[in-house]
Amino acid sequence: MPVIRVEMFEGRSTDQKRELVRELTDAFVRSCGGTPQSVQIVISDVAKSDWGSGGQLCIDKA
Amino acid sequence: MPVIRVEMFEGRSTDQKRELVRELTDAFVRSCGGTPQSVQIVISDVAKSDWGSGGQLCIDKA
Amino acid sequence: MPVIRVEMFEGRSTDQKRELVRELTDAFVRSCGGTPQSVQIVISDVAKSDWGSGGQLCIDKA
Amino acid sequence: MPVIRVEMFEGRSTDQKRELVRELTDAFVRSCGGTPQSVQIVISDVAKSDWGSGGQLCIDKA
Amino acid sequence: MPVIRVEMFEGRSTDQKRELVRELTDAFVRSCGGTPQSVQIVISDVAKSDWGSGGQLCIDKA
Amino acid sequence: MPVIRVEMFEGRSTDQKRELVRELTDAFVRSCGGTPQSVQIVISDVAKSDWGSGGQLCIDKA
Repeated sequence: MPVIRVEMFEGRSTDQKRELVRELTDAFVRSCGGTPQSVQIVISDVAKSDWGSGGQLCIDKA
Repeated sequence: MPVIRVEMFEGRSTDQKRELVRELTDAFVRSCGGTPQSVQIVISDVAKSDWGSGGQLCIDKA
Repeated sequence: MPVIRVEMFEGRSTDQKRELVRELTDAFVRSCGGTPQSVQIVISDVAKSDWGSGGQLCIDKA
Repeated sequence: MPVIRVEMFEGRSTDQKRELVRELTDAFVRSCGGTPQSVQIVISDVAKSDWGSGGQLCIDKA
Repeated sequence: MPVIRVEMFEGRSTDQKRELVRELTDAFVRSCGGTPQSVQIVISDVAKSDWGSGGQLCIDKA
Repeated sequence: MPVIRVEMFEGRSTDQKRELVRELTDAFVRSCGGTPQSVQIVISDVAKSDWGSGGQLCIDKA
């Protein structure tokens, strides 16, 4: 039942996402129980021109 | 006022989305009242390489 | 795999939510295929003091 | 700590997003306190073929 | 059409939310156009025991 | 920058959430890099009467 949504900067590889999904699923089951089959994870790649922090677009930060 | 957000695998046609929006709007109004004009629906197409289930990326599942 | 998230004003009964879940699930399967078992629906009840429209809190609207 | 998520029709320029981030950050700090550094803003551009209103896709509206 | 979702620590007053909604709506219209009537804002109050940062629950931070 | 949102059945203890936040943060940094300080995690406890699966409310499932 848990749904885990990850919003992160674009640019990670599919291999990194493969590992992220495995690790997040194990992390959830270890701490909150349930089964790996029940864990849904949705990843959103966000461009730095679509992410603001401290009043600036991240694309504008050094 | 209701906002309905749909995250689903990418690949559906605009016609399917057209029907989905009509059906979801009718389904909401029938069960919870309100008017069709008030119902906002936002669809997110998600790649199978961005969706994890059971500790695996869905792109890796048969 | 689809996750449908509904944000609506608080106040609907569990029976209305029961019907909403049945109707939204059928609406999705009819228009986009897949199986009812795969459809996850998460409902968020939102107070009118937490919903803004047209620059006002909805609690302040007639 | 606040996370502000904006879903809007695609088509705005990076300059408009730059101003949006500055303005939303200032608006939050003025009304709710905290520091600009703590405010995270994530922007999602949504195609009119992925946004439904009043039972129609917005791409089908005049 | 834009939907702006704000997740912030619980504890702000309705008056602060009233001002937040007014300010965010104006900020959006000034930078991205559209009309105030089209801007929907949904506020989620989050307990510090439900917000993690730097690997800790915020409730555990000084 | 990453924001991880977890929607799960209500009922977990603050200690479980404490461990969940630590584990998810480590899991993200191990697989996708970045620093623990940059990882924000927002947890939503969802009642079984607000979660639908297979066309039913989870509160109605054995």
